[in-house]
Amino acid sequence: MLEEQKNRAVEWFAALRDALCRDFERLEDAAQESPQPAGRFVRKTWTRDEDRQDECPGPDDRGGGTMSVMHGRVFEKVGVNISEVKGSFSPEFRRSIPGAEASEGRFWAAGISVVAHPCSPLVPAAHMNTRMIVTDHVWFGGGADLTPTFPEDDDTADFHGALKSACDTHPVADYDRYKAWCDRYFFLPHRGEARGVGGIFFDQLASGDWQGDFAFTRAVGEAFLDIYPRLVERHLHETWSEEQRRAQLIKRGRYVEFNLLYDRGTTFGLKTGGNVEAVLMSLPPAVIWP
Amino acid sequence: MLEEQKNRAVEWFAALRDALCRDFERLEDAAQESPQPAGRFVRKTWTRDEDRQDECPGPDDRGGGTMSVMHGRVFEKVGVNISEVKGSFSPEFRRSIPGAEASEGRFWAAGISVVAHPCSPLVPAAHMNTRMIVTDHVWFGGGADLTPTFPEDDDTADFHGALKSACDTHPVADYDRYKAWCDRYFFLPHRGEARGVGGIFFDQLASGDWQGDFAFTRAVGEAFLDIYPRLVERHLHETWSEEQRRAQLIKRGRYVEFNLLYDRGTTFGLKTGGNVEAVLMSLPPAVIWP
Repeated sequence: MLEEQKNRAVEWFAALRDALCRDFERLEDAAQESPQPAGRFVRKTWTRDEDRQDECPGPDDRGGGTMSVMHGRVFEKVGVNISEVKGSFSPEFRRSIPGAEASEGRFWAAGISVVAHPCSPLVPAAHMNTRMIVTDHVWFGGGADLTPTFPEDDDTADFHGALKSACDTHPVADYDRYKAWCDRYFFLPHRGEARGVGGIFFDQLASGDWQGDFAFTRAVGEAFLDIYPRLVERHLHETWSEEQRRAQLIKRGRYVEFNLLYDRGTTFGLKTGGNVEAVLMSLPPAVIWP
Repeated sequence: MLEEQKNRAVEWFAALRDALCRDFERLEDAAQESPQPAGRFVRKTWTRDEDRQDECPGPDDRGGGTMSVMHGRVFEKVGVNISEVKGSFSPEFRRSIPGAEASEGRFWAAGISVVAHPCSPLVPAAHMNTRMIVTDHVWFGGGADLTPTFPEDDDTADFHGALKSACDTHPVADYDRYKAWCDRYFFLPHRGEARGVGGIFFDQLASGDWQGDFAFTRAVGEAFLDIYPRLVERHLHETWSEEQRRAQLIKRGRYVEFNLLYDRGTTFGLKTGGNVEAVLMSLPPAVIWP
């Protein structure tokens, strides 16, 4: 039954990847005022066995993933990564992972991760990821959040609204808790600043009803697929100034600071033998620290 | 006697700052082929009592520093920061600091930190810092390293040579050990890459001869003041291509990854209530992650 669940999760992450890439390419086509050609995703597959310099992964570690990356005229850089890996956590690391001591460190993980950095400073950047993890326990985690350079109330309300609907229609989810968790998580203590305008964040979702947990996890992806392209479209044809662009490049510096100083996904990826290029795909294409 | 030692160290860091700023401004003047005006340092003073959002510093924490920053036509961004702070380490943090349990966490620290990011991809970036720290122990630490985008054997040899001379003329120093320490320290395990071409790194220098330790610490600053401007001058008038510039901006991404993922100075600064702007002054002015 667990193998069947893993297969269903892996298939879903790939299907969601396909849908997101299709929609992002559609947005590239829509930006006809741009003199640049519409962008297209380029896929690159990696396996865990290659490219590892350190001794982190055990001899039984395997798996891999596919990065889909587009550099376009709407999306300066957008990455949609899926992966499926298995292996062993180091003894120090397993203490912090539920069920990992009982599994003697062995884990399986699959997921999807999306990070979009638009060209326009008026189009919000966004992130979404969901994952299924198996140790001695089985759980889901993930979230989605929006990072505009110039927050607009309508965008923020619509983004939160889409995620709230996903939570409200799934009894395993608790919107208020997940929203607060997101605000707490995507925060830069050294700046006293939030990374963006929030969204939801959840982890260790194991209600006892795998079907329900998986349905909610799918709903998070679907909510993102529904709302984010609409927000992009809303601002796609607006023109911007050099000052606004500069503000965007500075704002992206905060994104880098968060991801490298605090993000657990980045740490997890680098510590568990994830592909460096895939793990650091979240970093923005151009950044300034003035 | 300790107060006298602290004063002498603080005076030295300020004198070295003045000499470095003077020399960097001289290099700005020398780049007469540039259509841009020569850059000049701008100073900004901070005190520890302001701007802190978290509860990290204790009520007796004080001190501050002066940032000298220049955005010029040779140096896209160069920062020369000096600071003098005192306070208490948190109980968790003090375990990792020599003499900090005996001092009940109380510490005093002063130092200078220099990071230069040149405009030209053919001029190496460089870093130097030295500091004096007092807990129940008293010690010096610091180092200097060079980060060229396109390493040249002559530059590397001359940079290493200057630091070797500083070590060889001071019996408290051990060049081979400090050079190896630098190579080990400025390394990005996730990339399997060195940050640059190395230099020296030393910490907890407390030979029992404070005068000797301080003389060596001064010599490290003097060696940097002697050699780095000469390397800048060597490449100052060379023209570069867009491809070389792009390579520089990508190389700077590795610098950011190192500083935010691994650098203890950054961690120390952020954890001990250092000024965020000063701590993150090391981050390059423009970066790409393609």
